[in-house]
Amino acid sequence: MRHTVRVVEQIYVGIDIGGTKVLAGVVDDRGRVVRTARRATPGRRVDAAQVEEALTQALTEVTGADTVLGVGLAAAGFVDATGERVMFAPHLPWVDTPVRSLLEQRWGVPVALENDATAAAHAEATYGAARDVADAIVVTMGTGIGGGVILGHRVHRGWNGMAGEFGHMQVVPDGEVCECGGRGCWEQYSSGNALVRFARDRLGSRPSILEDLCGGNPAALNGPMVTQAAEEGDLLAHEAFGHVGDWLGVGLANLVAAFDPACLVIGGGLSAAGDRLLEPARTALLRSLVGAGHRRVPPVVAARLGPDAGLVGAADLARHR
Amino acid sequence: MRHTVRVVEQIYVGIDIGGTKVLAGVVDDRGRVVRTARRATPGRRVDAAQVEEALTQALTEVTGADTVLGVGLAAAGFVDATGERVMFAPHLPWVDTPVRSLLEQRWGVPVALENDATAAAHAEATYGAARDVADAIVVTMGTGIGGGVILGHRVHRGWNGMAGEFGHMQVVPDGEVCECGGRGCWEQYSSGNALVRFARDRLGSRPSILEDLCGGNPAALNGPMVTQAAEEGDLLAHEAFGHVGDWLGVGLANLVAAFDPACLVIGGGLSAAGDRLLEPARTALLRSLVGAGHRRVPPVVAARLGPDAGLVGAADLARHR
Repeated sequence: MRHTVRVVEQIYVGIDIGGTKVLAGVVDDRGRVVRTARRATPGRRVDAAQVEEALTQALTEVTGADTVLGVGLAAAGFVDATGERVMFAPHLPWVDTPVRSLLEQRWGVPVALENDATAAAHAEATYGAARDVADAIVVTMGTGIGGGVILGHRVHRGWNGMAGEFGHMQVVPDGEVCECGGRGCWEQYSSGNALVRFARDRLGSRPSILEDLCGGNPAALNGPMVTQAAEEGDLLAHEAFGHVGDWLGVGLANLVAAFDPACLVIGGGLSAAGDRLLEPARTALLRSLVGAGHRRVPPVVAARLGPDAGLVGAADLARHR
Repeated sequence: MRHTVRVVEQIYVGIDIGGTKVLAGVVDDRGRVVRTARRATPGRRVDAAQVEEALTQALTEVTGADTVLGVGLAAAGFVDATGERVMFAPHLPWVDTPVRSLLEQRWGVPVALENDATAAAHAEATYGAARDVADAIVVTMGTGIGGGVILGHRVHRGWNGMAGEFGHMQVVPDGEVCECGGRGCWEQYSSGNALVRFARDRLGSRPSILEDLCGGNPAALNGPMVTQAAEEGDLLAHEAFGHVGDWLGVGLANLVAAFDPACLVIGGGLSAAGDRLLEPARTALLRSLVGAGHRRVPPVVAARLGPDAGLVGAADLARHR
């Protein structure tokens, strides 16, 4: 007679919390995601307890019968220099909240806390596209632009823990109004939001399948629709990627002028467009970069870890805390 | 009977070569300049031998009877990642030239080579305004903008040795044409050249002592005249500093968004204007910086080593080579 034995494993979990979803994953010691669980993020106008409950549910589901040795939380917000508090988060209810210790007490396991784009940069530096270089810039293109500065194979966190907020570098004086309160921020010209706005502003100016995709309602237009239209050869969608990619390259040139990194890694949801986004960026980088004829120009490459990068990085930070 | 004995000392020399002058100095082990010698820089259209001769004359004069243990050269140009070659210099005849080994052979002493703004940043990090912080940005405001990134008390040189070229970050799309071939570079809005251009473009639009100072010839207007006029209460000169200082703050906000340093050090000739330049920069930084209400905003301070910073840094690099 044979028995099936379920060995209880000791695991590390990463959880990525953004404005719309909570994604939890068990991550092994080579940065591979073993399994995941998902919840919707409660809206910003709820209290923090509901957000913490959603995190707990995702953690419980992904853990199953295993033993959790540590949890890393990657949060879409400003995390302080010590990795203790979420100072402010546009889409989450935490304001100057000691999220790390709160969750550690609630869950009874060690918790690490990091900004989501910083965690993703850490993952790309450790297991992904920046693994083989000492210094890199990781630009995360989602709704907006986040990112991380990799120096000597490590994420440079900065004095406030806020390094890598590339999306709010001003590229146009008195330009588009930004959620941050500023104007002309880079992410207003190169991001998922910028992609959609470019296409939306031009709907009706020429034939485009985007009109069908959004059901004739420009307000319903979203990033995946523009991506789909571009894949189907739609000219307007193609132009939208050209515009956002060109601005990506201009901003990258600024970062290269300042840091001179060996590699530029483009992650986040928009990076799924691949060369449709990256080729115009490469062209603009070469055009815009100071001394391009007298230097090695760093390659612009897609991130390797995809949408899991944040949770992979967070789990790794928990593992090595 | 008493003898005066001249002890032959063992010295390190730093030499700063810019577009107009060669400044050599003996620097002690606490970063203090013991004595200096100066030569004019031969123009760009001469051959490199004349530049090397001017360097040799300055070195010989400043050395006197002492024994040179090492020379550091701070050059206004792109220096490669290994510190061997000047790749390109707008005001010097070197193009992809192995300047370090050439001079080492000529002088028979160890030579270190570094970009001038990088050398100045190294000096400020070691002996100057950034001595007490791990991470700082040094912005050198002369004719244009140079600079250095200090991370963990050390200058971050970058993949090509070209980190810190802040002056060529684009801040205005299709903006002013820059010597680098680009448009809208930061140094076109905030630098000695930008200061003079602002005042020159407005000469005659209102009463200003600048008209007298330049002898009625706008082309003769220069930075020291604008500084002098501002000191004498001239409104146009004051506005020019306000304009350049405001743009300084906007660019600093971009650098802080990306690096999150603990200190911003402003050096170079223009920094002699002190708070006349720095106050509008501080105001613009607070206005422009993302999340300014949720973070510590780094102080904007004047460099401490003045025009000697480049040679002090170069001598120190030679000493610790």
